Amino acid sequence: MKKTQVAIIGAGPAGLLLGQLLHKAGIDNIIVERQSGEYVLGRIRAGVLEQVTMDLLKQAGVDARAHAEGLPHHGIELLFKGARHRIDLHGLSGGKQVTVYGQTEVTRDLMEARKAEGRETIYEARDVSLHDFDSDRPRVRYVKDGATHEIECDFIAGCDGYHGVSRASVPQQALHTYEKVYPFGWLGVLADVPPVSHELIYANTTRGFALCSMRSTTRSRYYVQVPLEEKVENWSDEAFWNELRLRLDPEAREHLVTGPSLEKSIAPLRSFVAEPMRFGRLMLAGDAAHIVPPTGAKGLNLAAADVGYLARALEIFYGEKSSSALDRYSDLCLRRVWKAERFSWWFTSLMHRFPETGEFGQKIQEAELDYLVHSHAASTSLAENYVGLPVEDF
Amino acid sequence: MKKTQVAIIGAGPAGLLLGQLLHKAGIDNIIVERQSGEYVLGRIRAGVLEQVTMDLLKQAGVDARAHAEGLPHHGIELLFKGARHRIDLHGLSGGKQVTVYGQTEVTRDLMEARKAEGRETIYEARDVSLHDFDSDRPRVRYVKDGATHEIECDFIAGCDGYHGVSRASVPQQALHTYEKVYPFGWLGVLADVPPVSHELIYANTTRGFALCSMRSTTRSRYYVQVPLEEKVENWSDEAFWNELRLRLDPEAREHLVTGPSLEKSIAPLRSFVAEPMRFGRLMLAGDAAHIVPPTGAKGLNLAAADVGYLARALEIFYGEKSSSALDRYSDLCLRRVWKAERFSWWFTSLMHRFPETGEFGQKIQEAELDYLVHSHAASTSLAENYVGLPVEDF
Repeated sequence: MKKTQVAIIGAGPAGLLLGQLLHKAGIDNIIVERQSGEYVLGRIRAGVLEQVTMDLLKQAGVDARAHAEGLPHHGIELLFKGARHRIDLHGLSGGKQVTVYGQTEVTRDLMEARKAEGRETIYEARDVSLHDFDSDRPRVRYVKDGATHEIECDFIAGCDGYHGVSRASVPQQALHTYEKVYPFGWLGVLADVPPVSHELIYANTTRGFALCSMRSTTRSRYYVQVPLEEKVENWSDEAFWNELRLRLDPEAREHLVTGPSLEKSIAPLRSFVAEPMRFGRLMLAGDAAHIVPPTGAKGLNLAAADVGYLARALEIFYGEKSSSALDRYSDLCLRRVWKAERFSWWFTSLMHRFPETGEFGQKIQEAELDYLVHSHAASTSLAENYVGLPVEDF
Repeated sequence: MKKTQVAIIGAGPAGLLLGQLLHKAGIDNIIVERQSGEYVLGRIRAGVLEQVTMDLLKQAGVDARAHAEGLPHHGIELLFKGARHRIDLHGLSGGKQVTVYGQTEVTRDLMEARKAEGRETIYEARDVSLHDFDSDRPRVRYVKDGATHEIECDFIAGCDGYHGVSRASVPQQALHTYEKVYPFGWLGVLADVPPVSHELIYANTTRGFALCSMRSTTRSRYYVQVPLEEKVENWSDEAFWNELRLRLDPEAREHLVTGPSLEKSIAPLRSFVAEPMRFGRLMLAGDAAHIVPPTGAKGLNLAAADVGYLARALEIFYGEKSSSALDRYSDLCLRRVWKAERFSWWFTSLMHRFPETGEFGQKIQEAELDYLVHSHAASTSLAENYVGLPVEDF
């Protein structure tokens, strides 16, 4: 039987960041992960970090490479009716920015820091189950190398994503879930080609949404909206680049550099929230509790903010012998989560084709985009959400 | 055969204001109205005037009573989750305001001014028809007192509302229409009781939307959202007041003064736009071209802005012998119309219960309201739309 203060379920960026923040606060923790480290690193995910996330990486002592290699972005471009309009995130948000740095790199930095500090991560832990989190001595059980193991702990942090065991361990009647599924997906391609533009381009076109994103100055990430029933095997690289080109403005079309895809996949878009985020001694964080559609890049950032709140609440618990912050954890997270859900839903609704809203819906999108790029107030609202709303104090 | 420069179809506030603006610019005009003057005055409509509308009333020389008796409003209140939050329209919009002054009073002032100046209005004109507006000599034909009459003119201004003959006279293939019908209506009561609050209260409640509005310090106008299939005869005054009370906060509930209804009706909510707004020598203005749901009080104000544009374009036509402004009339109107359509759709979507969006939709509303009242940028965006976006120059 192992013992620790906090057992963390999931070694994705949320679990690893929490582990590192707790480590810095002198709180012992063990991470239990179903997959191998290589598998976790192989997942291609988001790449736009809010200042709040960069600040947490700094607090965790793992921001050096993100600062050195990450690309600070001071704006985004909205493309509609064939023309691009820049939103000056930096100027409109009072000097804030976002940093383009792949989630894979964040995960790698956190894994290396954890290894260097000798904190335990149990990879390839099978049949993970959570027990007694309604008591003061919760336990985590798992099977590794054919033997059953148990960790006794003070708290369990569920950082194991939407499909993980943590939320599934909560009695149905204790959970209230909210969900919206969108009638389309994103077909994404990763390629080692220089990005078409040095800032992200979000495009609303008659053929559907497109996003020109990047991971670095030499690696690009592009997406096009496709029907939900579309199959990735029907999309050759050439077909993808052709479709993307049709959704760009003439200048971008001219500058687009294409190349073989390193990765190509279709992801559905979903909004999901489970309430509350705490059940006795089990706290959910990140995708385990909520999912946003990727428009606006809030997923990883929300997870980071959650574990930032959680690390702080646990620090107060152990430092001040007070559970007052833990008692507020769920409410404080959810208030910011719902605002990010609102923003992600709004930005998704604004930029995609929704067959069911018809021509009226399209004209409303055009009117909103026209208003948005010409109104200082509306641009500011977009900017403050995009760079990330502030986190609150306990 | 009568002759005039501009034949105006419809003697509602849009037609009357256009007539008055043209009169001030020395442009001859005749108004043709299907109903009697008493009937037009009896229609209970909107009551919140933007600064743009007040400026046009001034330009038309009919702002004295609106200024003397109208109530300047510097804010509105949003009620949700049981608490009211004030939006400081005046502070957030750089000193703008709205004026509460009933549409009936605007109409009365315009009718009296027109009468005093001896401009002709033909009431109770039956079987109105529009002819040859694709030529330089359009004609308006109508039947009055059993005889057929004809007006020869340079232009026809279609100010006769959604159900009027003007838009119906345009060949189907020349019109593109956009429409959204909402799955509920507004049950409204007009009563000679002092308003519950000195500013308007827009309420998002679990029982549905409610609006506490007014026409003066002694006449109130209240609305509650009801299902589309609801019948007004099922609502006694007592039932209405009871339902309204249930949608208010405790303080408002306590201050609510009830009384017999002067008028009680159910209005459906609709968004509608017909494009373009000009067909040769026929120009549509106001409800003849577009409808907004009443949330945000944009209907009358949009009509006023349209006729402001139209009067200016005609002034340029006659004064500078140039049709350049008339050529831009439709585009200039529609750009602002669509922004007001967007605002009215958004404010309607934010404040009403939509059974089809489910619990996720309700939580998104709550998150947006929470964000809206706490974000300076988002509050400013609401304020600048509510007081009215600026009109452009030709």
